Amino acid sequence: MKIYLAGPDVFLPDAIEVGRRKVGLCTRHGLTGLYPLDNAIDTAARVASLAIFRGNEAMMNSADAIIANLTPFRGPGADAGTAYELGYMAARGKLCLGYSNDPASYAERVRRFSAVTSRDGRLADAQGLAVEDFGLGDNLMMIHALDLHGCLLVTPRQVPLDVWHDFAAFETCVRMAAERLAALHARAPG
Amino acid sequence: MKIYLAGPDVFLPDAIEVGRRKVGLCTRHGLTGLYPLDNAIDTAARVASLAIFRGNEAMMNSADAIIANLTPFRGPGADAGTAYELGYMAARGKLCLGYSNDPASYAERVRRFSAVTSRDGRLADAQGLAVEDFGLGDNLMMIHALDLHGCLLVTPRQVPLDVWHDFAAFETCVRMAAERLAALHARAPG
Repeated sequence: MKIYLAGPDVFLPDAIEVGRRKVGLCTRHGLTGLYPLDNAIDTAARVASLAIFRGNEAMMNSADAIIANLTPFRGPGADAGTAYELGYMAARGKLCLGYSNDPASYAERVRRFSAVTSRDGRLADAQGLAVEDFGLGDNLMMIHALDLHGCLLVTPRQVPLDVWHDFAAFETCVRMAAERLAALHARAPG
Repeated sequence: MKIYLAGPDVFLPDAIEVGRRKVGLCTRHGLTGLYPLDNAIDTAARVASLAIFRGNEAMMNSADAIIANLTPFRGPGADAGTAYELGYMAARGKLCLGYSNDPASYAERVRRFSAVTSRDGRLADAQGLAVEDFGLGDNLMMIHALDLHGCLLVTPRQVPLDVWHDFAAFETCVRMAAERLAALHARAPG
């Protein structure tokens, strides 16, 4: 089983090492991790970004599953690039797994960034925009995509010391993917 | 042609009115706008959020195109729910259109939220995470999805007074979709 490893991890200073670590965890569970290319290409802007796009799209097309790192990125919610990739894989009928190293609900996290008021039982941020308050870890489109096209969002009990380098929740996703693969094989031996 | 109207517009206090306005603009150009359901359902949490998810997914499946409002939402980039939907539609081979009412590049916007430093010609935010610096309006996965599966991101010359109620860029997308439809009809008359 090939798994596309989506997430803002590609933006870390040690992105390549983090990728190696994640791919290694997949290998340990008998799976093939595919890590996005964002850091492998280092030439002029437009051409480079298109090459990364095409490379990532080809990687997603060749993968059987996605593990999306939905840990909050530059704000209260997930990285939009990762969200795009999760939607892409859901639409292709691939197995969708995801984790966030922040177990707070989306509404709780918005409070950290903005004054949140409640009117007629509905939460709104400082701009007056409604705050999703379903008790979910992030936007309902992503969270229910995991529920329905894969497994529930994986979160730790508490925020780990280093959200970008703690791989426990990630490894839980890998394990779930491996179990899914084993179940498929059991159903269709040979 | 049916167009799914994705965006954080559903979180506005006057979300329903904004939806009517957008659907009306589609109608004026001979198209059918489908506006997400997030505000139509108002019952208990989990059930409601699942109902919204299923409704939005069904709407996307029935649409021929998407117009994604990628105007920055609670941070320097697009709403992750909208990004998810853009990825979903791209994967289904639907026509992908999008706009942002902030014409700044993603890197410029990150500077508004975080101290950005440059090391070896690469930008990084206060957490040390790399800042995409391709001169694009947002994460490359979304921007190139528009380039390759539809039309270039539409932006105004300058930020309008009310980013959530200025429909000029949106209407440009509607016009492009209508032109695309007309071209299809011209190719296959009757």
